[in-house]
Amino acid sequence: MIKVFIFGISGKMGQILAHSLPDDFTLSGCADSTRIDEAPSDVIIDFSSAAATKSVTALADKLNCPLVIATTGQSEEDIGLITECAKHHAVLRSGNMSIGINLMLKICGSLKGIGKCEIVETHHTQKKDSPSGTALMLKAASGASEIHSLRLGNVVGEHKVIFGLGNETISLTHTALDRRLFADGAIKAARWLINQPYGLYSFDDFLCSEKHPSLFHSER
Amino acid sequence: MIKVFIFGISGKMGQILAHSLPDDFTLSGCADSTRIDEAPSDVIIDFSSAAATKSVTALADKLNCPLVIATTGQSEEDIGLITECAKHHAVLRSGNMSIGINLMLKICGSLKGIGKCEIVETHHTQKKDSPSGTALMLKAASGASEIHSLRLGNVVGEHKVIFGLGNETISLTHTALDRRLFADGAIKAARWLINQPYGLYSFDDFLCSEKHPSLFHSER
Amino acid sequence: MIKVFIFGISGKMGQILAHSLPDDFTLSGCADSTRIDEAPSDVIIDFSSAAATKSVTALADKLNCPLVIATTGQSEEDIGLITECAKHHAVLRSGNMSIGINLMLKICGSLKGIGKCEIVETHHTQKKDSPSGTALMLKAASGASEIHSLRLGNVVGEHKVIFGLGNETISLTHTALDRRLFADGAIKAARWLINQPYGLYSFDDFLCSEKHPSLFHSER
Amino acid sequence: MIKVFIFGISGKMGQILAHSLPDDFTLSGCADSTRIDEAPSDVIIDFSSAAATKSVTALADKLNCPLVIATTGQSEEDIGLITECAKHHAVLRSGNMSIGINLMLKICGSLKGIGKCEIVETHHTQKKDSPSGTALMLKAASGASEIHSLRLGNVVGEHKVIFGLGNETISLTHTALDRRLFADGAIKAARWLINQPYGLYSFDDFLCSEKHPSLFHSER
Repeated sequence: MIKVFIFGISGKMGQILAHSLPDDFTLSGCADSTRIDEAPSDVIIDFSSAAATKSVTALADKLNCPLVIATTGQSEEDIGLITECAKHHAVLRSGNMSIGINLMLKICGSLKGIGKCEIVETHHTQKKDSPSGTALMLKAASGASEIHSLRLGNVVGEHKVIFGLGNETISLTHTALDRRLFADGAIKAARWLINQPYGLYSFDDFLCSEKHPSLFHSER
Repeated sequence: MIKVFIFGISGKMGQILAHSLPDDFTLSGCADSTRIDEAPSDVIIDFSSAAATKSVTALADKLNCPLVIATTGQSEEDIGLITECAKHHAVLRSGNMSIGINLMLKICGSLKGIGKCEIVETHHTQKKDSPSGTALMLKAASGASEIHSLRLGNVVGEHKVIFGLGNETISLTHTALDRRLFADGAIKAARWLINQPYGLYSFDDFLCSEKHPSLFHSER
Repeated sequence: MIKVFIFGISGKMGQILAHSLPDDFTLSGCADSTRIDEAPSDVIIDFSSAAATKSVTALADKLNCPLVIATTGQSEEDIGLITECAKHHAVLRSGNMSIGINLMLKICGSLKGIGKCEIVETHHTQKKDSPSGTALMLKAASGASEIHSLRLGNVVGEHKVIFGLGNETISLTHTALDRRLFADGAIKAARWLINQPYGLYSFDDFLCSEKHPSLFHSER
Repeated sequence: MIKVFIFGISGKMGQILAHSLPDDFTLSGCADSTRIDEAPSDVIIDFSSAAATKSVTALADKLNCPLVIATTGQSEEDIGLITECAKHHAVLRSGNMSIGINLMLKICGSLKGIGKCEIVETHHTQKKDSPSGTALMLKAASGASEIHSLRLGNVVGEHKVIFGLGNETISLTHTALDRRLFADGAIKAARWLINQPYGLYSFDDFLCSEKHPSLFHSER
C-alpha cells in the first residue's frame, strides 16, 4: 500500500485525486491553505499552487519522501527551492499530468516542419481561457500557424492537430473523457517516482523510462 | 533537370507518375511489359511489379544510375538481385511510397503498448482487398487488436488508429486526397537517392535523413 | 417548483437523475425494489425496469400525475397497462431519453437510401453488449449495411453514421459526454409532459412539438 | 441517349462535366465565350457565368429544351430573363450542384436552435475565399455563431457543423472527394428535369421529389 499525502486537497483537482486513488494507494495526510495534517508518507502529490512551493518542499524534507509537483507558474525563487529539494528527494515537476497530451507534444515535435499545420480545440462553454493552455503548448511543439477554439456544450476537452502534406493529411486528436485523467497521470508518475534516485524529473523522464523507447530515447 | 526513367509506365501508378513529374524532372525513357525505351537517365523509378526485378536491376546496371523500387512481393531470389544491384548503385526499396503513411507507422510503433488500440479504415467501394494492406501494416506497428473496414463511395483512403488510455484517447488519422501522393513520395525519394552513396535504402532512411531527427534518429 | 417522484432511485440512472435535478425541480418521493416513499408529486420519472410497470402505473393513478417511462423491454401485458394508464394521465414512454440520439434517428431516417451507409460506434471496454442498442436503432433507421463496434478506454459513447454518395460523403456523429444526458432528457420531457393532455406520447412527440417543426412536422 | 449541350465548356467545371458524362449522356453541342456550336439537344447545362444569362436563355428557346443553370450572381434583369424562359421550358437554377451540401443545408435548418453551433471548414491552400461560400450558407441555415477556416494541403473541401447540447454533441460532416461531384449533381438534376413540366425549379425541388420525402416534404 502506497501512502500518499495530497497537498491542495480542497481544490478541484485535489478533490478528484482524493476520490480517484487506486486500490494500492491510501491517503496518509493532506493539506490545504488552512491546515496541514502530517503523517508518514511514501509520496506527496501537490495540486495546490506555485504559492505553496515553500511549504510543500519543506514538507518533503520533513516527511523525507518523493514529491510530485503538478502546479504551474513557479517563480525563479520557487524553482530554486525545488532544485534544492531535488538534491535530497526524487522530485517530478510538470504543468500537465496528462499522459496523452505529453505523448501528443512529443509526436508534434517530431512532425514539426513536415507541412503546414493548424490546431482545432474544443471545450465546454464555461471555459474562461481561449485558446486553451494545452493548445498553446501544442502550437509551440508543432509549429502550427493557427489555433481555432470552439466552445460547445460540456465538452471536457479535445485537441486536434492537423498537418497538410500535399495530397495527404495527418491529424492527431486527443480527447479528454474525464478530468480524472490528470489525477490518473499524477498517480502513475508518483508510483514511478518512488523508485527513482534523488533528482529533478520531468513528465517526459517518466514516460521515456517506462515505455516508448523508440519515440523518446533519442531526446534524452 | 533530373532525367527519370519510368519502369512500368503503362500501369496505373506509372501513368500517374508520368503525369505528376515536377518542373525539374524530365522523362528520359520508359518501359512496360512489352518494350524498353532506353536512354541515359539520372534515376529509375519502378512501379511495375516484382516479376520485373531482373529486368529493372539489369537496367540500373546498364544505365548506371540509382533505382527506386516501389513494388511489393519480391521473392528471395528477387531480394538477392536487389542486394547485388545495391553494391554498385543507390537502391531504395519500399512497398509504400506515402510519406504520411510511413510517418504514421513510425508513430504507431512509438505508441504501441500504451493502451488498447483499434483501427478504422475507409476506402471506395471498388477496392478489392479488405482490410487494406496499409491497415495490416498499421496493425503490426501499433499492436491494434482489430481492423474495421468501411467501403463507401469514392473515398481515396483514410486510416484511423485509436488508442484508449483510460480517461483519454489518442487517435491518428491519415487521409489520402489523391492517388498522386504515391508518385509524390517516389519523386521525393528519387531526388534524395541520387545524392546517396551506393547501398540499399528503406523509405525510413530517406525520411530520417531529411527531417524529423527526434522521431527517427534513435532507431537507426 | 416541480415535484418529481423518482421510480428506481437505487439504480445507476435513478442515482444520476437524483443528483442532476435542476433548480426548479425537487424530489418529492422515490421508490426502489424494496420500498415506496409516496408523496404528492407533479410527475413520476421511471428509470427502474419493465418489471415494475404494474407498480409504476398504479402509482400514477394513486398520485394522479403524469408519468415518464424510461425503461425498455415491456411485455404486451405491460403495454396494455401503460395504454390504460394513458387514458387518465399524460404518459411518455421511450427507451432512449437522449435528445441527440432521437434527433439522429430522425435525420438517419430522412437520409435512408441516398447511398451506402455504415455505422461506427465506440464505447468503454466495460460495455457488455456489442453492438450497442443505439447502434441497432440507427442501423434500422439509416439502412446501414454494417455496424463496427470499437471498445476503447472509458469512452462514454460515440455513434457515427456515414453515407457514401459517389464523390461525396456525409457523416453524422453523436457524442455522449456524460451519462447525465439521459437524466437531462428525462427532465426536459417531464417538464413538457406536465402541460400535455391525457394520452400516450413518444419522445418524438415531445421533440416535434417543442422545436424543429421542419424536420419533424411531415411525419406526424 | 440524352443529348446534352454544355454552356461554358472551356471553364473548369465545363471541362470536368464534359469528361464526367455517364454512358447514357452524349455531348450534342457546346459554347464558350467565343463560339456556340448549336445542335438539337435534350437539355442544356450552364456552368459559364451569370453574364451569359441572355445567351443561354435564348439558346433554350432556340433548341426548345430544358435548362440547368449552375451559375451564381444573377442580376434582377437576369432573374427576369430566367423567369420568362421558365414559362416555356423546365428550368432549374442552383448555385450549388452538390447533393450532399444541399442535404446538409436541409438538416442544419432542421437543427437550428437546438443548441450553440460552430462550423469548421477545411480547403486546399490555394483557395482564395475564406470562409468558403458553402460555409456561409451553412452558417445561415444552422444559426452557427462562428466559422473556423483551415487551409491545408490539397484538401478538396470538408465542412463540419457541430451542435452542443449540454452533455451531448451532434456533428454533421460533408467531405468532397473530387470536384466532379458538382458535375454529378448537375447530371442528376438534368436527368430529372427533362421529365418535368415547364416551370422554374430549385435544387430542392429535385431532391424532394426524388427521395427523402420525410425530410423535405413538410417544407414544400
